[in-house]
Amino acid sequence: MSQILNEVMTANAEYVSDFGAKADLPMPPGRHFAILTCMDARLDPAKYAGLSEGDAHVIRNAGGRASDDAIRSLVISYKLLGTREWFVIHHTDCGMETFTDDIMRGLLASSLKTASVDASGWHDSGAGPGSTEGNYIDWLTIRDNPTSVVEDVTRIRNHPLVPSDIPIYGYIYDVKSGRLVEVPEATAAGRAR
Amino acid sequence: MSQILNEVMTANAEYVSDFGAKADLPMPPGRHFAILTCMDARLDPAKYAGLSEGDAHVIRNAGGRASDDAIRSLVISYKLLGTREWFVIHHTDCGMETFTDDIMRGLLASSLKTASVDASGWHDSGAGPGSTEGNYIDWLTIRDNPTSVVEDVTRIRNHPLVPSDIPIYGYIYDVKSGRLVEVPEATAAGRAR
Repeated sequence: MSQILNEVMTANAEYVSDFGAKADLPMPPGRHFAILTCMDARLDPAKYAGLSEGDAHVIRNAGGRASDDAIRSLVISYKLLGTREWFVIHHTDCGMETFTDDIMRGLLASSLKTASVDASGWHDSGAGPGSTEGNYIDWLTIRDNPTSVVEDVTRIRNHPLVPSDIPIYGYIYDVKSGRLVEVPEATAAGRAR
Repeated sequence: MSQILNEVMTANAEYVSDFGAKADLPMPPGRHFAILTCMDARLDPAKYAGLSEGDAHVIRNAGGRASDDAIRSLVISYKLLGTREWFVIHHTDCGMETFTDDIMRGLLASSLKTASVDASGWHDSGAGPGSTEGNYIDWLTIRDNPTSVVEDVTRIRNHPLVPSDIPIYGYIYDVKSGRLVEVPEATAAGRAR
């Protein structure tokens, strides 16, 4: 068993030992809202937004982007499980600002099956050598943070399966302070109609 | 300001007030692993797997499914940010087991802009009345939990952009106990090659 697997199982056993009344939580989120945010390791949405188990749906991907899959999840969240307010929360110092589709495609195409990391923390390894699969993926990189939040809130607001009466709030999480800072243009774009 | 927005901002202010050394965390996950799991409100991956801020990437969508977007996120996690072990964690009593594509399409097509909830907790509201957009979405529902974990680990393992040397572990989180239960066939399918 790997060290990580061992550590995760040990932490889980501790969690189980004090699980208590959480066993009785119902499926629908008790506080009727959902957060779409980034997978970044520094972000803990339960902590930064004050969530207990059972409170809210949390959807996360690279960038916290309003991908088709994130919208699939939000529509299910609303339609089947009753959330009535949504947050889109990107963050400062996001990895998605550090590359472009072209860079990612180049990195993947030149993969050499080594596991070196250059000074910037970028790995040049893995994936089938010379694979061109990455050319067909939109990596959803971010050029400018407030803009990405506005774009994503707007995309969700205008999606044909998203009900017009749900407010969508746009925020940026500051990794240096833990603070949620509103992007007013995003929240305005996400206003219920 | 809505009550939810107010509560979230109050919780965030408290988090900010005791942020401390988290301000100095680097972008790459310190423990070099990633978890793909469900958006379900009852799941707190940081708690059930023992994560502190900075430790690991967490990707979440409806079902914890290995969608194209989840794979986009995992490839970025590995390639740019150095994760070297991945977990796929579905859970018992998942909302994705309670409906099918046909049911979802019917619900969306018959939306009446009311906000009723029937006895099963299903909402019949929202989305443009008569919209057929839902017919074009694969909702990634789940028929059987261990099977979905095996399928998703296998899909990730066989994806052309996923390096063959990363182990992928398959688990089910039990919402009644908080326990992570391995799906051995999934972990076997996800073994590094």
